[in-house]
Amino acid sequence: MSKGLPKRSEDYSGWYNELVKKADLAENSAVKGCMVIKPYGFAIWEKMQQQLDQMFKETGHENAYFPLFVPKNLFEAEEKNAEGFAKECAVVTHYRLKNDPETKGKLIVDPEAKLEEELVVRPTSEAVIWNTYKNWIQSYRDLPILVNQWANVVRWEMRTRIFLRTAEFLWQEGHTAHATRQEAMDETTQMLDIYAQFAEEYMGVSVVQGIKTENERFAGAEETFCIEAMMQDGKALQAGTSHFLGQNFAKAFDVKFSNSEGKLDHVWGTSWGVSTRLMGALIMAHSDDDGLILPPKLAPIQVVIVPIFKGEEQLDIINEKVSEFIPLLKEQGISVKYDNRTTHKPGWKFAQYEMKGVPIRLAIGPKDLENGTIEMARRDTKEKQTISFEEISSIIPSLLDEMQDSIYQKSLNFRMDNSTKIDDYEEFKKQIEKGGFVYAHWDGSGETEEKIKTETKATIRCIPIDGENEEGKCIYTGKPSSKRVIFAKAY
Amino acid sequence: MSKGLPKRSEDYSGWYNELVKKADLAENSAVKGCMVIKPYGFAIWEKMQQQLDQMFKETGHENAYFPLFVPKNLFEAEEKNAEGFAKECAVVTHYRLKNDPETKGKLIVDPEAKLEEELVVRPTSEAVIWNTYKNWIQSYRDLPILVNQWANVVRWEMRTRIFLRTAEFLWQEGHTAHATRQEAMDETTQMLDIYAQFAEEYMGVSVVQGIKTENERFAGAEETFCIEAMMQDGKALQAGTSHFLGQNFAKAFDVKFSNSEGKLDHVWGTSWGVSTRLMGALIMAHSDDDGLILPPKLAPIQVVIVPIFKGEEQLDIINEKVSEFIPLLKEQGISVKYDNRTTHKPGWKFAQYEMKGVPIRLAIGPKDLENGTIEMARRDTKEKQTISFEEISSIIPSLLDEMQDSIYQKSLNFRMDNSTKIDDYEEFKKQIEKGGFVYAHWDGSGETEEKIKTETKATIRCIPIDGENEEGKCIYTGKPSSKRVIFAKAY
Repeated sequence: MSKGLPKRSEDYSGWYNELVKKADLAENSAVKGCMVIKPYGFAIWEKMQQQLDQMFKETGHENAYFPLFVPKNLFEAEEKNAEGFAKECAVVTHYRLKNDPETKGKLIVDPEAKLEEELVVRPTSEAVIWNTYKNWIQSYRDLPILVNQWANVVRWEMRTRIFLRTAEFLWQEGHTAHATRQEAMDETTQMLDIYAQFAEEYMGVSVVQGIKTENERFAGAEETFCIEAMMQDGKALQAGTSHFLGQNFAKAFDVKFSNSEGKLDHVWGTSWGVSTRLMGALIMAHSDDDGLILPPKLAPIQVVIVPIFKGEEQLDIINEKVSEFIPLLKEQGISVKYDNRTTHKPGWKFAQYEMKGVPIRLAIGPKDLENGTIEMARRDTKEKQTISFEEISSIIPSLLDEMQDSIYQKSLNFRMDNSTKIDDYEEFKKQIEKGGFVYAHWDGSGETEEKIKTETKATIRCIPIDGENEEGKCIYTGKPSSKRVIFAKAY
Repeated sequence: MSKGLPKRSEDYSGWYNELVKKADLAENSAVKGCMVIKPYGFAIWEKMQQQLDQMFKETGHENAYFPLFVPKNLFEAEEKNAEGFAKECAVVTHYRLKNDPETKGKLIVDPEAKLEEELVVRPTSEAVIWNTYKNWIQSYRDLPILVNQWANVVRWEMRTRIFLRTAEFLWQEGHTAHATRQEAMDETTQMLDIYAQFAEEYMGVSVVQGIKTENERFAGAEETFCIEAMMQDGKALQAGTSHFLGQNFAKAFDVKFSNSEGKLDHVWGTSWGVSTRLMGALIMAHSDDDGLILPPKLAPIQVVIVPIFKGEEQLDIINEKVSEFIPLLKEQGISVKYDNRTTHKPGWKFAQYEMKGVPIRLAIGPKDLENGTIEMARRDTKEKQTISFEEISSIIPSLLDEMQDSIYQKSLNFRMDNSTKIDDYEEFKKQIEKGGFVYAHWDGSGETEEKIKTETKATIRCIPIDGENEEGKCIYTGKPSSKRVIFAKAY
């Protein structure tokens, strides 16, 4: 296997594309803009799913499933939402194919099987879900509804990129209904916290929690909260959003409940989601010029063991030794792969598991057997260490923990090192060119935001939640501002 | 909650529809033919998924994800497959909506956003997957490929029924590629075995393993294997299929590999799937006029505890007592719900958990506290028993095991009791009218099969794998036959 990844410093974008391919994560499909997620990539996504699903369930959410299709008249009901997504909707218009009378073996769309009402392939499910909730909710006793769904959605994008922006992607979308504004708002921020916790503790990616400006808000929401991560090229990546929907969808779909005094009111809503885009964030945040670097908690294989041997006899002895300590690791919930294939050389295997980001590699050869030792290499720092057999089952779990922490710290430090406060527009432009997060004052107007975007390609990623109140002047107009916002170029 | 289920003996079909609704399993959606799977129904499906997924992984399969859409030209490539599904394909023809110039707030399909090539919403994924495998396979070293995907598929059905036949459904589809015919055939039967094992050990549903006739074969397969279950009305339900694809898809998509001698050959394939249809089988196989009966292994709640009390003080004492033994059950992996809501009466709760099929109900009141006992009721037989607190943590796990077994035995006995060997066509017609599986001789011709179907509505469910060879005469034509096949009316 030739490595052949472009260097990050020379071609970050090419590096990403090649890495996705060479690490067997995903590939483009025959369908424009849609990807195939390969088994190794999917195994990482499954680990993400399992952890998130557990976190959702621990906070009282249940999974359900709603239709893939949204009838056009439902889709239209919440106008802003409809307007926001109309331009990227795949539309089903017919329900049958028939033989092409002109060419044998070919099929054509049967014009007689035209749908009376077109069906939109869901770009998001608020419409179909709120239309369902209408029948589930009569009284405050029916609230809250805390439902999540794992599903595929389609948003017809012209410029796509694997994991980051694809026409079809996988995600989870939580849709909750509440009796009060406060309860819905608490749910919105609770889910944002869960996303931030997942990003930091599991993905090892440091994030900023913030609020989107009106321009960047989810179509149909009153307020959009987000987590923003920084990639190694200094660009921002929105990694998850949690929307406070107010009563917008309840009003559009006429979802009312009678409160404990018997008074009718519209229901309050939230929605929140993360997608296979997180795979892109995971890859770009940590990996290096030799391949993927995975945080141990999301690595499908945490430890790979490669035997170094000449001839069957040596291999047999190594096999036996290895079979003694593998169970000690597995007992501790560590996933171990022993690659004793004779069809590939150790060097090839080393490169392959580096490319695939396996956190710890153990190599064991005849000399190690003599000495009762094994060579242990960690993927993130490439450090090697010789340890004794007896130490394996205690050192490895603690090294995995240490790596998980260290990967996160590196991501945090990188973000801090590449975050700057700037008060001068010329300096601002220069800094944006260099990359990173720029904390600057802004006058709060969408017009200013748009002008800055046009001139610098930077968008306001968010108004950070934990940002200090600080009097200042808008970097563009000089108008007063009371808090800095984060500007960056973004994926 | 009024029960109000129709009786099975009077209106089996109405009973099923109402049960699905009243047990909160699923409901029809605003999209014709598509269902909403509600949280309780979805929790059962998740249990099925987890178990199947584990069984697939234990036999070496990995999950992946392929696009929802199939370009029409790919879909056409395997002609029989295309022909088989063409009549039920939802087709995406446009990728954008725009504002209706004539009606404010309404959207129309943008005629300028017509796709050059229409996209079929996958009714099954052989085409898109084999087109992908083409690039994954060069040499015998790349084989076997053992991949599964959990996905939604769409088959436009005119007459739909929740879980049993819906336009969109959820399923898993395994797609494997092999170097030899034998290996592919072994995979096909291995997966059939896994489905049978799952149906019997987890769903508690007795099944017959068999082979489909040519008329009933999957479009594009050389041989279709199936498991057939019997519902309480005597009708058959096909619960899973495993297809030996031969080299059909490899030829259609030009998927070749070089074997160890360097010779090129087409790859051998299989595909196999089970769907949310299993939910229908589970419901119809076991449940009674009071509601759902769930085998403990698939019950989201295995034990429900209902306190019987007057006033807060009594409830407090019960709460305390209950909190002592709940952990003892949870430690054993038993899912327990304690329903101490004060908004609903015990009788209402009893009926609700009966409707939802919770296997064991514990009721505890002031007298029980005095006596140190609790009332235990099992859902399947409705038997009640008074047990002491000390016995709870040992009796419950063994009762759950016993119920799992007993539910399966009942299903097995029912199938055996309703299976008949018949050699006379008049008798055959009468028996088919009564229901059940009829084992009869058949001359092997599709024409005969079709005539019998027209006259009796019975189809050949399968040629049972473990059926004895037995010389006989076709029940319809009198031509020679060497083995009985199973006829039945089916879902």
